[in-house]
Amino acid sequence: MTRCLKNPFPQTTPEILGAMFDLQQYLLRYQKTINNKILEFLKADDHSNRVLKAMRYSISAGGKRIRPILALAAAEATHARVSDVLPAACAIEMIHTYSLIHDDLPAMDDDTLRRGKPTSHVQYDEATAILAGDALLTFAFEILSSTKDSASENLSRDVKIIRVLAKAAGYQGMIQGQMQDIQAEGNKLDLDELITMHSLKTGALIEAAVDVGALFGNSGQEKMHALRSYARHIGLAFQVIDDMLNVSGDPAKLGKAVGSDMDKGKNTFPGLMGMTNATAYAENLVQTALKSLELFDNKADPLRAIARYIIDRRS
Amino acid sequence: MTRCLKNPFPQTTPEILGAMFDLQQYLLRYQKTINNKILEFLKADDHSNRVLKAMRYSISAGGKRIRPILALAAAEATHARVSDVLPAACAIEMIHTYSLIHDDLPAMDDDTLRRGKPTSHVQYDEATAILAGDALLTFAFEILSSTKDSASENLSRDVKIIRVLAKAAGYQGMIQGQMQDIQAEGNKLDLDELITMHSLKTGALIEAAVDVGALFGNSGQEKMHALRSYARHIGLAFQVIDDMLNVSGDPAKLGKAVGSDMDKGKNTFPGLMGMTNATAYAENLVQTALKSLELFDNKADPLRAIARYIIDRRS
Repeated sequence: MTRCLKNPFPQTTPEILGAMFDLQQYLLRYQKTINNKILEFLKADDHSNRVLKAMRYSISAGGKRIRPILALAAAEATHARVSDVLPAACAIEMIHTYSLIHDDLPAMDDDTLRRGKPTSHVQYDEATAILAGDALLTFAFEILSSTKDSASENLSRDVKIIRVLAKAAGYQGMIQGQMQDIQAEGNKLDLDELITMHSLKTGALIEAAVDVGALFGNSGQEKMHALRSYARHIGLAFQVIDDMLNVSGDPAKLGKAVGSDMDKGKNTFPGLMGMTNATAYAENLVQTALKSLELFDNKADPLRAIARYIIDRRS
Repeated sequence: MTRCLKNPFPQTTPEILGAMFDLQQYLLRYQKTINNKILEFLKADDHSNRVLKAMRYSISAGGKRIRPILALAAAEATHARVSDVLPAACAIEMIHTYSLIHDDLPAMDDDTLRRGKPTSHVQYDEATAILAGDALLTFAFEILSSTKDSASENLSRDVKIIRVLAKAAGYQGMIQGQMQDIQAEGNKLDLDELITMHSLKTGALIEAAVDVGALFGNSGQEKMHALRSYARHIGLAFQVIDDMLNVSGDPAKLGKAVGSDMDKGKNTFPGLMGMTNATAYAENLVQTALKSLELFDNKADPLRAIARYIIDRRS
């Protein structure tokens, strides 16, 4: 246990670190592309619009852009043009940011710090934070319905993307996960319940992001199924590591306090199975995710590197 | 002024009351159709889903269904099939209900009663109310992207409807109106500012509802333009009357306390121009709305009757 607290990632090999190095370039490049496009979407020169300012504030407050990058990487893996997917990828990040703003509210998780900056309701006020979240969610659907492409097969794809994201973000997906998370505070969940909660709360949107990217590509049912399996497993691994970082991470790198989950009586993977088992579990999930990608060529290397990055990250 | 407080609708003639009688049947019939369809959409048999329960609670708490009925009536006016518009009409009511749930929150208008029942955060709690609002908004887009029709022109229409509604509900529409309303509390707005605020807060979605209905029909640019003018004018008239009812209405019929706007220092039309002028202003708006419909045949009679109903209602 002590060993794991000091180095919770004993499987990290030089080979993986090598892959990590390339991935850093990839992540930086796409983070920049995504950030530029997001600011272009939110560039409206309306200085009196407080909601717009709050939208910009939260979405510009850092963030790894994992979900939109997964959409772009899934597009690459299925031989699609990355530029086609970019607006949808930005919409996904807006949905993610809306969920963070609302989850941080005093009535929900009551967090004052996110990505090292005051949360929206601290920086502005509660009313503005609620509206900025609402607005980011709504704007995501405006973006998703604003592509200029009127070819029938592309319209069909756009409608499907909207449906996939609305379902994933909705009352049977992400929102239900957040509700379960709140309801579970102070109650002990078993592993199945914890997995279900996270599959909804964070997994659904991660899976949808990969799905959206692949919808731009040329994938049959088998590949779509494989990509969903990949996404489901890395989504869960992402959450396991998140929980572990909340126990043993570096607050400076995380941009938030550690130990807050325990203080709030949250159900976590290390809390349920201990750090050693949680480490092994995350590693196992990532291995299964990588196995799902076996039928893809080297265009799926970014997806493979992201899977490894997820258990290797420090923030 | 006293005369108007006793009878704020001096223009009500027997002829209009005759039209009103038919409209009552029309409204009741469509309210039933809409309510059944909404419950069908929200019928998922998931008893443990607290968010779903809260969604059902607020959307079933009464409500005149003016917005979805306007969508259906605009479809009729443009010779479309009403049944085609029904899912989109329900989605519009979900967007409206989400906005009410969030507007009622303690951090916003802090209302405890809506349509004669406890507001969502009183009946459940704040977290559930925020999530139920989020979920209704998200589910609206799921419905709008779930039509089975794959003909190219219909896909194009569906994408356009999503765009129209996302824009109307977004940070440059309804959400911006709510932000302006909150920011204006305690500050004195002039008439132009008050009109702008309400055009965004309630007008944008009413205009979008009529737009959506007409998108199912066979309308050229001229008719679309006329319908938008109709919607803009009745939307504003609706708000003027709402403000007047808040001064002189019957709390039992309204399902909420009267006088709350004044208590909160809200800017209102009667507050700005007095009851007599507000009455004349609403009447004038409705006359302009009716004039916009001149190029329509008798299929637009429901829209005409709704315009009259708006200044004649008591709740």
